[in-house]
Amino acid sequence: MKIYFILFDGFETLDLFGPVEILARQESHELYYCSLTGGTIYSAQKTPIDTVPFKEIESDGVIVLPGGRGTRNLVNNEEFLLHLKEISKQATYCLSICTGSALLGQAGILDGRQATSNKSAFDWVMSTSEKVQWQKQARWVVDGKFYTSSGVSAGMDMALGFMADRYGIEVARKIAKDIEYVWNEDSKNDPFARKD
Amino acid sequence: MKIYFILFDGFETLDLFGPVEILARQESHELYYCSLTGGTIYSAQKTPIDTVPFKEIESDGVIVLPGGRGTRNLVNNEEFLLHLKEISKQATYCLSICTGSALLGQAGILDGRQATSNKSAFDWVMSTSEKVQWQKQARWVVDGKFYTSSGVSAGMDMALGFMADRYGIEVARKIAKDIEYVWNEDSKNDPFARKD
Repeated sequence: MKIYFILFDGFETLDLFGPVEILARQESHELYYCSLTGGTIYSAQKTPIDTVPFKEIESDGVIVLPGGRGTRNLVNNEEFLLHLKEISKQATYCLSICTGSALLGQAGILDGRQATSNKSAFDWVMSTSEKVQWQKQARWVVDGKFYTSSGVSAGMDMALGFMADRYGIEVARKIAKDIEYVWNEDSKNDPFARKD
Repeated sequence: MKIYFILFDGFETLDLFGPVEILARQESHELYYCSLTGGTIYSAQKTPIDTVPFKEIESDGVIVLPGGRGTRNLVNNEEFLLHLKEISKQATYCLSICTGSALLGQAGILDGRQATSNKSAFDWVMSTSEKVQWQKQARWVVDGKFYTSSGVSAGMDMALGFMADRYGIEVARKIAKDIEYVWNEDSKNDPFARKD
């Protein structure tokens, strides 16, 4: 299974690398770091990552989309959104972390679906699409081939949930144990949901 | 404060990027990714990271050393260990995650000090030095300027502990909330300690 991480300048570092750590632990997974035009991409925390261009993404893979402050400009980038729409249409699964779901919402990819996002940026994320059934209390949400998680660290819980759905819960629990991570197994258990 | 992440091929991805996410949230911190000779370094999960050579590391900074399968060969690399000894001597603080402490142990940097490491690699880590007081039950350990954490995800708890020690616990708690991370605040609370 080929897994394509969709990067852009200003992505949130841990949004990406929590899921990378977990998804890489299945030997059959091949990981690729991609961006619109390829080259070095800098995270919001200035981590420089080498990427290949979107055109190298094959269909039938899994795409993973982090959030981060870079999404605030990217929701206005028509070229990026058009590519994202095409890539996500062809993907077997599409995962987003934090405000990554704002990009999916803006591109119309989540129309009619349930999804979630970072709780402290929720109003802005909801403003990207009225056609998404935004879930205010969820660590992560699964709707068809779409997995969307709450903020930053929630991406790890979602990635373990994805592994459980594909390979069984014991595989996911073993990964959590191996990385000494206390997995929040219940996607509905959201300690960071707002009270309003 | 300048923070130098000490990288090598085969470092564990989340060992690095959990602490990166947390330490970068203090605006006065400047982050640098370094390796013995500079250039592209690949994590155990094949993430390509651009690095600068060790010689660019200034004294009085903080060094952060991840673990990962790459440490198994690196404990035999005299040149690397000599540099690590010099760098850690000049650093204000020295943090390691997971089997990063095996490198510190092998280099003699932790002689006479308390330290911990990944619980599933503990026997091997202990074999690198009899002069270290290895702690079998600890999420992380602080001894003077040295912070050592248990496996992978424990690096996040330790990095938050480091932030609390430098800037106060409310700063650390705010970061944990902002990244929607359930922080294990008690360094002695180790859910992954072995029962033997």
